[in-house]
Amino acid sequence: MHNTNPTNTDLKNRSHSSPSSRRESPATNWMKIAIIGGTGHLGEGLSIRWAQKNEIIIGSRKPEKAVEAAERYLSEMKSIGCDTSKVEIRGMGNKDASNVADLIVLAVPYKHVFKTLEPIYSELENKILVTPIVPMKKVGDHFEYTPPKQGSAALAIQESVPDSTKVVSVYHNIPSCKLKDTSCDLGYDAVICADDDEAKQMIIDLTKEMNCLRPLYGGPLAVSNTVESITPLLLNLAIMNNLKDLGVNFS
Amino acid sequence: MHNTNPTNTDLKNRSHSSPSSRRESPATNWMKIAIIGGTGHLGEGLSIRWAQKNEIIIGSRKPEKAVEAAERYLSEMKSIGCDTSKVEIRGMGNKDASNVADLIVLAVPYKHVFKTLEPIYSELENKILVTPIVPMKKVGDHFEYTPPKQGSAALAIQESVPDSTKVVSVYHNIPSCKLKDTSCDLGYDAVICADDDEAKQMIIDLTKEMNCLRPLYGGPLAVSNTVESITPLLLNLAIMNNLKDLGVNFS
Repeated sequence: MHNTNPTNTDLKNRSHSSPSSRRESPATNWMKIAIIGGTGHLGEGLSIRWAQKNEIIIGSRKPEKAVEAAERYLSEMKSIGCDTSKVEIRGMGNKDASNVADLIVLAVPYKHVFKTLEPIYSELENKILVTPIVPMKKVGDHFEYTPPKQGSAALAIQESVPDSTKVVSVYHNIPSCKLKDTSCDLGYDAVICADDDEAKQMIIDLTKEMNCLRPLYGGPLAVSNTVESITPLLLNLAIMNNLKDLGVNFS
Repeated sequence: MHNTNPTNTDLKNRSHSSPSSRRESPATNWMKIAIIGGTGHLGEGLSIRWAQKNEIIIGSRKPEKAVEAAERYLSEMKSIGCDTSKVEIRGMGNKDASNVADLIVLAVPYKHVFKTLEPIYSELENKILVTPIVPMKKVGDHFEYTPPKQGSAALAIQESVPDSTKVVSVYHNIPSCKLKDTSCDLGYDAVICADDDEAKQMIIDLTKEMNCLRPLYGGPLAVSNTVESITPLLLNLAIMNNLKDLGVNFS
């Protein structure tokens, strides 16, 4: 849990920040988090885990799908007994969601990344962009990591966003069906790769807020490949050893 | 622990097997294991963990170094109270060690792999070759995985050995200073990549024999990159988070 948040304030004060990012948040630590492609399992888990202390904006190519997902997540929170009186989960198109947010999670499959980024390019100025994205393909009975020429999804994404966007690579290796069960202290490690110290610290704080993961700093974006490639490994380990929904711990 | 071992027998009966691989072992499951580059930490850990149930041959470019290491490991086993009356740990040059062995562990740094393999090429026919090798380099304050054009050390090694050699990729992510402490049940996972089912099963059995690691099959050699690249990640996690001697668990 973070206290006074200089990073957030700093981001709001940047001269190039979008109008939305200058809005006052309801509380000091309250962040506006857009989850692009947030109608999937990972989006659901992150939304429910973060919604008590942040405003969540689900983004989708089709706004009506985002609205439907937002309503569903709110219902789910109510059904498991969460106090939702102050919870704000909304749905929007990707561009509006990115415009409103301070921090954007790109929760789409790798094959959709670049066509998703193009129309929201200008909304990404001075914001944190979180990538849990893993390029991989199934070959026969197993999955292989298929990084682009830049070496990883994170490095390819960094080339496709404004220079002022802080890319953070994290949450690749969290079984999303477990993430949405808020009663569950997963106990997994979430390795964070980032080049920007403030963005890294913000994600460490947000990860701690979930109360179910241990944030570990893994190094600069240059080593995101070592984290991304664990996802096909987890899938292969599950397939080959009759296991299910695996995560990872380092000790 | 393995019982009757058809794999081992099968290997001994192959028409192209070297004279050494046709020798009778003292017991059904007793294997002759050469550890090339076995004078280092990993070689020490593997030797001490396996020596109660297998014959260990330490290989080195300089035979006298191998003999010295073998004597040191035996002394260490005695000093921690092991019954060494039936233990055989010997030291030899790499070529002789490979000739004697049924199974060969290549415990050398990546930069020495190919010049180590070349002179022992003909000794590798019909044998199992274990690679715990990780190509990586230090860049500034962190390590990066630097696979060769084949995609991983394991795939590059497979190209440099006889077609009859069964390459198995494993033990990349085990902190070797913990491995040599036989009182320690590390509890780590050892992910095994292999294309040959018999060789895979033999390594699963040998891993269980160590009584400190859980063997997990990770898939074919094609995905060895996902396992190898965890080593620089472990080093980075230790550096960046003030941790030490990390291993990995999947759950």
